[in-house]
Amino acid sequence: MTQEIYWDHHATTPCTPEVVDAMREFFKENFGNPSSIHIAGKRAKKAVEMARCQVAAALNCREHEIVFTSGATESNNIVFLGLLLAGPGSRNKIAVSAIEHKSVLEPARMLAKHGFELIILPVDRNGSVDLIETEKLIDEKTALVSVQVANNEIGTIQPVKNIAAIAHSKGSYFHTDAVQGLGKMVLDLEDINCDFASFSAHKIYGPKGVGALFTRGGPARWPFERPLNGGGQEGELRPGTHNVPGIVGFGEACKQLQIGLEENIEQLKSASTTFVNLLKSHIPQATVNNHGGNFLPGIVSVSFPGLPNDLFLSNLPNYCVSRGSACNSGTLAGSHVLSQILDRETINNTVRFSFGRYFNESDYLAFFDCLKILLKKINGHERNF
Amino acid sequence: MTQEIYWDHHATTPCTPEVVDAMREFFKENFGNPSSIHIAGKRAKKAVEMARCQVAAALNCREHEIVFTSGATESNNIVFLGLLLAGPGSRNKIAVSAIEHKSVLEPARMLAKHGFELIILPVDRNGSVDLIETEKLIDEKTALVSVQVANNEIGTIQPVKNIAAIAHSKGSYFHTDAVQGLGKMVLDLEDINCDFASFSAHKIYGPKGVGALFTRGGPARWPFERPLNGGGQEGELRPGTHNVPGIVGFGEACKQLQIGLEENIEQLKSASTTFVNLLKSHIPQATVNNHGGNFLPGIVSVSFPGLPNDLFLSNLPNYCVSRGSACNSGTLAGSHVLSQILDRETINNTVRFSFGRYFNESDYLAFFDCLKILLKKINGHERNF
Repeated sequence: MTQEIYWDHHATTPCTPEVVDAMREFFKENFGNPSSIHIAGKRAKKAVEMARCQVAAALNCREHEIVFTSGATESNNIVFLGLLLAGPGSRNKIAVSAIEHKSVLEPARMLAKHGFELIILPVDRNGSVDLIETEKLIDEKTALVSVQVANNEIGTIQPVKNIAAIAHSKGSYFHTDAVQGLGKMVLDLEDINCDFASFSAHKIYGPKGVGALFTRGGPARWPFERPLNGGGQEGELRPGTHNVPGIVGFGEACKQLQIGLEENIEQLKSASTTFVNLLKSHIPQATVNNHGGNFLPGIVSVSFPGLPNDLFLSNLPNYCVSRGSACNSGTLAGSHVLSQILDRETINNTVRFSFGRYFNESDYLAFFDCLKILLKKINGHERNF
Repeated sequence: MTQEIYWDHHATTPCTPEVVDAMREFFKENFGNPSSIHIAGKRAKKAVEMARCQVAAALNCREHEIVFTSGATESNNIVFLGLLLAGPGSRNKIAVSAIEHKSVLEPARMLAKHGFELIILPVDRNGSVDLIETEKLIDEKTALVSVQVANNEIGTIQPVKNIAAIAHSKGSYFHTDAVQGLGKMVLDLEDINCDFASFSAHKIYGPKGVGALFTRGGPARWPFERPLNGGGQEGELRPGTHNVPGIVGFGEACKQLQIGLEENIEQLKSASTTFVNLLKSHIPQATVNNHGGNFLPGIVSVSFPGLPNDLFLSNLPNYCVSRGSACNSGTLAGSHVLSQILDRETINNTVRFSFGRYFNESDYLAFFDCLKILLKKINGHERNF
């Protein structure tokens, strides 16, 4: 039986040993509540503030602009709920791309139920937001524009700097779900010039259950309502006892990422390029939907004509890959991302491979062997491929 | 120099070794996303579902009624925001006690800004909600009543079963912030008959950054709007990638709590009773604000006439105790809880001791020695005390 192979790093990543080591003491020995004013609380607070510096350094922003949350889904929701509660006022439009993650699309739809007009920014065949259309669709009535740094299903890198500029030219705020960009490309919040950005630690070899919301100028300059209320933590923007070990782990993951970013990007490029090249020679009928150019390294979306992805997954259970995003996996509806760039049948034959920092060419070769056997079994004879 | 002594278990608790052990494998080795449909995802999902059973068993509810959140602050906010977004309709009142935690009071105040009428239920000199007044104040216009199981600053155990009955008799929903009750008293959600309840793992020797919202009948029967939106996790009530290690740790903490509850309660009783008895003989002028009767075991609120708590904390830095709750510690305003039962000067002289499962009589004696020296220094001579 084949050893279990994990090629689903866009769904989640393991913590590095360094991250686990950094967190360890904060569970049992150094367990204070950073809101406590005594010595145990102060130590915990110091650890949280060090992590804030590490995260800010990786993103090129200032420490006080980082608000720790439970992850990007919460970060996205704080932005959208904050605007919802502030009310539409004279700016009653919000604009998001057609291929946003559900944690942006669904909050945006909720705003549409509460008096806002939802504008969907169209994308081209590569999933890239159409800037000419965007320029037309965003106007003086637009309160907020939200476009992700990079897509989670096909890896399209969006022109967020240009979209931010368009938004700002009309007086709109610009938010970006930056989850998939972090660690896989150079990401500079100063350069993008976004007003808000969302991050999750578990996509960059940090722990699950922690993330951040970048808010320009810090929580003191938050322009919307504060949807979450309580003990006043994180500049009253994200109350609740700090997840100290999680925050420390996130900080460590950012520190490592900053040290090794160029190398990581090269590794991811090498992982996907090697895979695509071998795929072409071993499974020539397969089509790659997203390699090179304006796509993130490390993610390969492949369509296998005649092989439904359900059959792929059930017959090759030791290969951890996905159809679309993990967050969509529970639903029967096809991916809203792939439906923008592929026809329905092709979507049903599409599998997402997302590689990590380390890969092994022999794993690829073993995989193609398994796949050839499966294709032979399904098609009755090998020449169908 | 005195060794550091932690008597602030109402602020947070350390993880037990068993909790840390249970979580360990889910950071690095077993790191799948429970929303993924492959083998790594399924293993993670299984761990989450086992934890759900452990939490439900400790609370006497059904597994599908447990929604994992990032902690009680988030759980409370989901209830209040859900009602806010559903809108006041024909029931435009909400009622909370005067001594709720800020993560209930502040969301309640936000509802008051958005069209709801906020009713504050009064408490007596022990902090106990006045049932006769409650009966008068809750009516057919009341949408939601929220009263905590036990108070975080003085430990008052509220008559939540009676309040739930009053709420239900008027057709209102009843929510309880049950954070401080769990692990310190018998807590049975079936018996209380609440509709919603909030919990945090880090108050019961579990990890920070994870908690639960109990919702009767499960998320499928959620009566309000769903304020947080995204990938549909947790019955679409709490989206975002599951914090698998945190959830596993929470489950383990609940398992241990269920096994050892009676013993824990006895330990807490013994810890506070021993402390109070020794205090009376060593510092006879000190007044205990909350011992025995209808108060949680393990928490002792003490006023030291002539000794401002700021001076206490700065002069005895190795004793980790607090003025009020950790969540209030950053603000200069006096505690809204203590102001219901004590005069202003007494509040300034009040310190909260919250003991854990294990205590050491010799620590108490060493503490009283330090305190006597401090009092002597401050008062110039010992007989003032």
